[in-house]
Amino acid sequence: MEKISKEIIAERFQKIQQHICEALEKEDGIGEFKTDLWERPQGGGGATKVLADGKIIAKGGVAFSAVHGPTPEKILKKLSLEEADFFATGVSIVIHPINPMVPIIHMNIRYFEMSNGTYWFGGGIDLTPHFVDLEDARYFHKQLKAHCDAYEASYYDKFKQWADDYFYIPHRKETRGVGGIFFDRLSANEKMPFSKLLSFVEGLGYLFPKIYCHFMAKNHKLPFGEQELKWQALRRGRYVEFNLVWDAGTKFGLDTNGRTESILMSMPPEANWVYNQTPEAGSDASKTLKLLKKGINWIKA
Amino acid sequence: MEKISKEIIAERFQKIQQHICEALEKEDGIGEFKTDLWERPQGGGGATKVLADGKIIAKGGVAFSAVHGPTPEKILKKLSLEEADFFATGVSIVIHPINPMVPIIHMNIRYFEMSNGTYWFGGGIDLTPHFVDLEDARYFHKQLKAHCDAYEASYYDKFKQWADDYFYIPHRKETRGVGGIFFDRLSANEKMPFSKLLSFVEGLGYLFPKIYCHFMAKNHKLPFGEQELKWQALRRGRYVEFNLVWDAGTKFGLDTNGRTESILMSMPPEANWVYNQTPEAGSDASKTLKLLKKGINWIKA
Repeated sequence: MEKISKEIIAERFQKIQQHICEALEKEDGIGEFKTDLWERPQGGGGATKVLADGKIIAKGGVAFSAVHGPTPEKILKKLSLEEADFFATGVSIVIHPINPMVPIIHMNIRYFEMSNGTYWFGGGIDLTPHFVDLEDARYFHKQLKAHCDAYEASYYDKFKQWADDYFYIPHRKETRGVGGIFFDRLSANEKMPFSKLLSFVEGLGYLFPKIYCHFMAKNHKLPFGEQELKWQALRRGRYVEFNLVWDAGTKFGLDTNGRTESILMSMPPEANWVYNQTPEAGSDASKTLKLLKKGINWIKA
Repeated sequence: MEKISKEIIAERFQKIQQHICEALEKEDGIGEFKTDLWERPQGGGGATKVLADGKIIAKGGVAFSAVHGPTPEKILKKLSLEEADFFATGVSIVIHPINPMVPIIHMNIRYFEMSNGTYWFGGGIDLTPHFVDLEDARYFHKQLKAHCDAYEASYYDKFKQWADDYFYIPHRKETRGVGGIFFDRLSANEKMPFSKLLSFVEGLGYLFPKIYCHFMAKNHKLPFGEQELKWQALRRGRYVEFNLVWDAGTKFGLDTNGRTESILMSMPPEANWVYNQTPEAGSDASKTLKLLKKGINWIKA
């Protein structure tokens, strides 16, 4: 299998970051990503790009990193390894829009390699509408299914279920949103050569702006009022709860002394908490809560 | 040693809750605590009292609970026990004020007992000023030291250090505020009979409103503007980060299927996040950051 070097993968990931930022800036029309370069004392670094106060985007981050060094204890333990160096590169995105009718979105692609030859790809994308719109959810999942199907027939169902399980808030008994796809520890095999696997992962990166610009263009002029903004602030609170309490990536980053500002770039600009808040029966908010469940076939919903 | 029954301890704790709510309502002048009674399917229940939109208090919760049943797996493992029933009762408080010059405060007292006879008290109180005021910090710690000293000469130093270590945000390299005291697994011994230990814990409960009403009265009319409110919202974000990422009590509650709304009653009404925000050199916000360190002797500061 023609494995591609980690340096080239990192380069390609950085190009994806660049492409995504350009596409989002163009669609937003006003906002500009500001770049924050940082170095990791133990090896490597990254470029965190943040857009604040755009026309459509309230706060969005697109982070690239390529780090290396001795493998953290936690990973070595999990893999029952004694000592190894690691290399990890990835692109992570979270976008919080101004208009509550535009969904929050998250995407991540990552590549991990160790000096003993072990490597894998991981990634995921999920959509968190403040108000679930069935047509939007269908569009989102159709795009993901088409992308998965182009590479491997079993991917969509498997990765969709994985996302339902991953983007779940146990203490609220709610999914974070309408899910998406999630995958981890993907290595090449006979059916899926390395280059094809990389192309699947890269393809998700290039699909991201297509999907999100669609929602930005379609929904950013939809009318909203005080009530919708209040609900948005509460849903942003749930987003904070998921990320800080349950998200494995965030937990790992904060536990292993990662770069806090890049990890917490996913936080919303503002979040509210109201004790024991339940939306009025029959309201759009109440309908949304009923749809924050695992196992919904959004393409047929 | 004349141990007092768990039912009587729970009764006394509930009286403390009542006393605190009355004192805070009186000092606030407008706000009223609303009571939410709840039952725990596996045994016991509680009364969560929440005050929203007062004159001085923006959002405050004073929760009492007394729960029992089979001991959760996590605790059994920690204590290397096979099976036992448990009983736990406690009062927990977090108050978020409107005026950024009034500090956020937290207090907790708790009693835990198992069917095998093991029992202990725990608790703590800590102050989180949005802007650290040395005089306020000194007053706070003097009150705590006087209370500790009345029971046991070694308590204050030990429990003050414990609070510095507990109320710490590793990923920010900041303490949550100016600390306070924290203690856990306190059982009676020859020097400290059960009734004296209970009185120390109860005394902290009765000291709470005295301390916080002092800050409410003294600071709620201090002037503030947009800048102070912005900083308050960012500090509330840090409060969220500590509680959701690091607070052992919150983690344990959410992990063991506790009552989410009572656990997250500690969340601020609103919190903001701004990427890589650093306050202007020499500003009050910047001075505050420099004081969010462990090991400061506030009484002499």
